[in-house]
Amino acid sequence: MFERPIWWDGDDVVVIDQTRLPHQATTVRWRTLEDAATGIADMQVRGAPLIGVAAAHGMALALAADPDAVAASADRLVATRPTAVNLRWALDRVRAEVADLPVDARGAAARRLAEQMADDDVRACRSIGEAGLDLIEAHHQRTGRPVQVMTHCNAGWLACVEWGTATAPVYLAHQAGIPVHVWVSETRPRNQGASLTAWELGHRGVPHTVVVDNAAGHLLRTGAVDLVVVGADRVAANGDVANKVGTYLKALAARDCGIGFHGAAPTSTYDAACPDGDAIPIEERDPDEVLTFGGTRVAPEGSPARNWGFDVTPARLVDSYLTDRGALTADELPAAMQATPEPA
Amino acid sequence: MFERPIWWDGDDVVVIDQTRLPHQATTVRWRTLEDAATGIADMQVRGAPLIGVAAAHGMALALAADPDAVAASADRLVATRPTAVNLRWALDRVRAEVADLPVDARGAAARRLAEQMADDDVRACRSIGEAGLDLIEAHHQRTGRPVQVMTHCNAGWLACVEWGTATAPVYLAHQAGIPVHVWVSETRPRNQGASLTAWELGHRGVPHTVVVDNAAGHLLRTGAVDLVVVGADRVAANGDVANKVGTYLKALAARDCGIGFHGAAPTSTYDAACPDGDAIPIEERDPDEVLTFGGTRVAPEGSPARNWGFDVTPARLVDSYLTDRGALTADELPAAMQATPEPA
Repeated sequence: MFERPIWWDGDDVVVIDQTRLPHQATTVRWRTLEDAATGIADMQVRGAPLIGVAAAHGMALALAADPDAVAASADRLVATRPTAVNLRWALDRVRAEVADLPVDARGAAARRLAEQMADDDVRACRSIGEAGLDLIEAHHQRTGRPVQVMTHCNAGWLACVEWGTATAPVYLAHQAGIPVHVWVSETRPRNQGASLTAWELGHRGVPHTVVVDNAAGHLLRTGAVDLVVVGADRVAANGDVANKVGTYLKALAARDCGIGFHGAAPTSTYDAACPDGDAIPIEERDPDEVLTFGGTRVAPEGSPARNWGFDVTPARLVDSYLTDRGALTADELPAAMQATPEPA
Repeated sequence: MFERPIWWDGDDVVVIDQTRLPHQATTVRWRTLEDAATGIADMQVRGAPLIGVAAAHGMALALAADPDAVAASADRLVATRPTAVNLRWALDRVRAEVADLPVDARGAAARRLAEQMADDDVRACRSIGEAGLDLIEAHHQRTGRPVQVMTHCNAGWLACVEWGTATAPVYLAHQAGIPVHVWVSETRPRNQGASLTAWELGHRGVPHTVVVDNAAGHLLRTGAVDLVVVGADRVAANGDVANKVGTYLKALAARDCGIGFHGAAPTSTYDAACPDGDAIPIEERDPDEVLTFGGTRVAPEGSPARNWGFDVTPARLVDSYLTDRGALTADELPAAMQATPEPA
């Protein structure tokens, strides 16, 4: 039974090898900077919060071996996932922490900070969970039946350190003995729902059912869902949410069917400098993710594909934001998020 | 270059083997009843209209060999796809046609009827295309740019005899020299979009791009689509549309973005006896279609799945019905569809 996707074992860092999920739950031991760099690059760990935490752990390994190699180690790690904002932010934090320390104190200081960053993530995700737990409890009290939650992609503990964001209310409810069942969208093209969310829910004993992304409307329209909770990659100042492509379709169906739609995200995801969703750049990825499935080509040779990783859900479709500062409306976001937004 | 998915070559029936698409475009020759029955059961041909036409062709082969075996041949064919309404309807038509004929006239009569049924389908689909062509032309005249059409699943000539339903306006526009580009949703879980629609558009030289089903909202929201045209498995009396699961999500996004959403279907799809979408039974299929992809398991062992084949799009989201009796609104459907609704 795994509690976290990353932890210390003596002087080594151990991670769940997420590239083997859902079929094999195996761990990899990182002993060196190079182990950590390769592990991040190869996506043994993934998910924005976890990548940042893992990079800090890599710095701790690096500085324990060679406390003079601060800049070189950070450069090696930042190159592994060059577009990950949390990665650069975490590395900058470690560099700042050790910059003025004597050489022989750097390794321990980096490790302390890495551990603290992991704990901070756990605390933030737990607060998100508490903000959403009320919703789940209210549904259960009203109906007396298991609460039916729909989610999208993987905003779970595999992407964070514990609890996850969208999954945090589910795990807290499960722990509190409130019966809950999760509808897991497979989340094409990378199938993080079917492969990661289904696995991590199963690992914690949470009842769940996998459906294709296309099924969300049918489920919502036929009363099979009590609430929708998704993660967020970025929340704009006005509350527009950028999240895994397909999120907007679920939000539309939830609204059309009168079902609550909630975005779960830590303070760090709120971008006060970004006025609205139209200002959020949408990453376009390799078309081969669409054209193939598990290495097998789906579409004919000669048929092109496009592959956007995210879409924008307008704030008007979001009933609440489950944050580490409570459940908020779009109007409440700017004031509540004013203090120190930084990646957790 | 294939014109149709089924045709006569001398005394044989030839079909495109759709189980080999999109990677191989090969044909299979049916010489006997058993060839036809096996071909239908193995899904060498699929799509409701084509299954009916193919079954009639199978009867013609059967009665050419043994004109006494009317009932036995029909029984053999109906058992191949027991839930296909068009199959039973087509077989009943052939049985009625030959029932009172002398034995030596039956084979030729069955063949004439099979050919007529194919021609009727072509005519109905062409009329649907003409009803939609106006929409495409209007967009092109307004913008001067290639018209961007989004569709779902395969409601194309591979499922019919020529033209298809949702694709008919596209093919007519392409033939008329109006530049058109189709956004093809892959259509999980069976990928009929990526594998069949992409192939048949490519085969006719129509520009197209494959996307995951999740991308529909992003495309519509960013102005990449001029109109959405989908097929229909059943249209209720009030205009609610049952079609491949995921259709409802596209209709919601189209409405939210102010883009026209159109259902293309022959008269035979209108079910005056069915008051609304809630009365349409939604087929649930094997969960393995969700849990696996091309034979590879996507979800963890122990994670269950559900697999609904269709969803219902409420009439309020459908801007027009493109039918063989013209482009209609929901209010116009009952009167226009009054005469002889039967599978084409």
